[in-house]
Amino acid sequence: MKKVAVILSGCGVNDGAEIHESVVTLLALDRLGADVVCAAPNKPQADVIDHAAGAPTDETRNVLVESARIARGEVTDLAALTASDVDAVVMPGGFGAAKNLCTFAQGSDPWEVDPEVARFLREMHAAKKPIGAMCIAPAAVAGVLGGEGVTLTIGTDEGTARRIESTGARHEACLVDDVVIDHEHKVVSTPAYMLAGHVAEAAAGIEKLCAAVVEMA
Amino acid sequence: MKKVAVILSGCGVNDGAEIHESVVTLLALDRLGADVVCAAPNKPQADVIDHAAGAPTDETRNVLVESARIARGEVTDLAALTASDVDAVVMPGGFGAAKNLCTFAQGSDPWEVDPEVARFLREMHAAKKPIGAMCIAPAAVAGVLGGEGVTLTIGTDEGTARRIESTGARHEACLVDDVVIDHEHKVVSTPAYMLAGHVAEAAAGIEKLCAAVVEMA
Repeated sequence: MKKVAVILSGCGVNDGAEIHESVVTLLALDRLGADVVCAAPNKPQADVIDHAAGAPTDETRNVLVESARIARGEVTDLAALTASDVDAVVMPGGFGAAKNLCTFAQGSDPWEVDPEVARFLREMHAAKKPIGAMCIAPAAVAGVLGGEGVTLTIGTDEGTARRIESTGARHEACLVDDVVIDHEHKVVSTPAYMLAGHVAEAAAGIEKLCAAVVEMA
Repeated sequence: MKKVAVILSGCGVNDGAEIHESVVTLLALDRLGADVVCAAPNKPQADVIDHAAGAPTDETRNVLVESARIARGEVTDLAALTASDVDAVVMPGGFGAAKNLCTFAQGSDPWEVDPEVARFLREMHAAKKPIGAMCIAPAAVAGVLGGEGVTLTIGTDEGTARRIESTGARHEACLVDDVVIDHEHKVVSTPAYMLAGHVAEAAAGIEKLCAAVVEMA
């Protein structure tokens, strides 16, 4: 049985992990027979957004604690996870991937990647274990592995693609129901909600991503 | 196109809507070609649980605002929704269904059902529109329609089944990947995480529930 880490970044599209992408990932991996370990950084979220009003609140929430909502309590501190523990990793998107896993959403280039996320991704790459990243999560991957010349996609947005390429990564445009596979670096990416208008659209690409990642593991 | 209301009760299995059940429901309805309207009561949650520690916190959160995380911002105040707006309703479970939509989890019989949930379910039943309920959400349905003699399932737990039957409802034991259909009252139920050990197990029953509800709508 392949063991796959799923790195969460909170719980909710505007300040955490995109919930649909996360659950579709967990479901797809389960149906592929993979054993899943959810993990997240144990630190405060960059912000907390009222998802009904679409506006920031003055609350503080912890990335690991909120990620536990998606993981039904079973979530590991990413600091305790090493590449030797798993065969592959998948990173759902949402603003949490761009605010909590790295500082891409904050807007300045180059952006910083959370130290534990960076360490873990470097270990996975060095061990030649596959990395899946969807939606805006490829920004975190590019922030760590751009210098290696990885190829990935965030969909079709030109401005975002140019920022991704500023790391040395190569960006390839991709339809919502498809994936970009970098066989050399074992990196698989799909646009998900960077392009999807509804959950079934996102799911089509995410299911392909999960299948490709598990096959490469 | 069938229009289906999905009634959420927060965001997280221990104090809100069960996230996997909610997303699997949204995905299944989308793939069935249904148009979904997410709705939730606009009121404080009964409690807030730290899902990593499994313990209550002293925070306060609003059911509608947290439900908006699952709905990606598109959530309607249940008070503004009437049976004439939709063709069917599906209720995911999680402790939110038993704490925020009714007081079943608080433990005393008979339990109270949130006034807007009760009004909406009575309207749907009177209009002969189908009601789907999974996991522990049938407790809210029984709290409103038990006196009509509806048949439903919460899986196989004897104690919970006896409480459900105290309302006048009939309980039928059901496997995790199956549904109980009351054709007379148009009520469909499935155990989901009352029995499921992993998300694919829950999804098998939820997909059958959504298909039955959309077909009856």
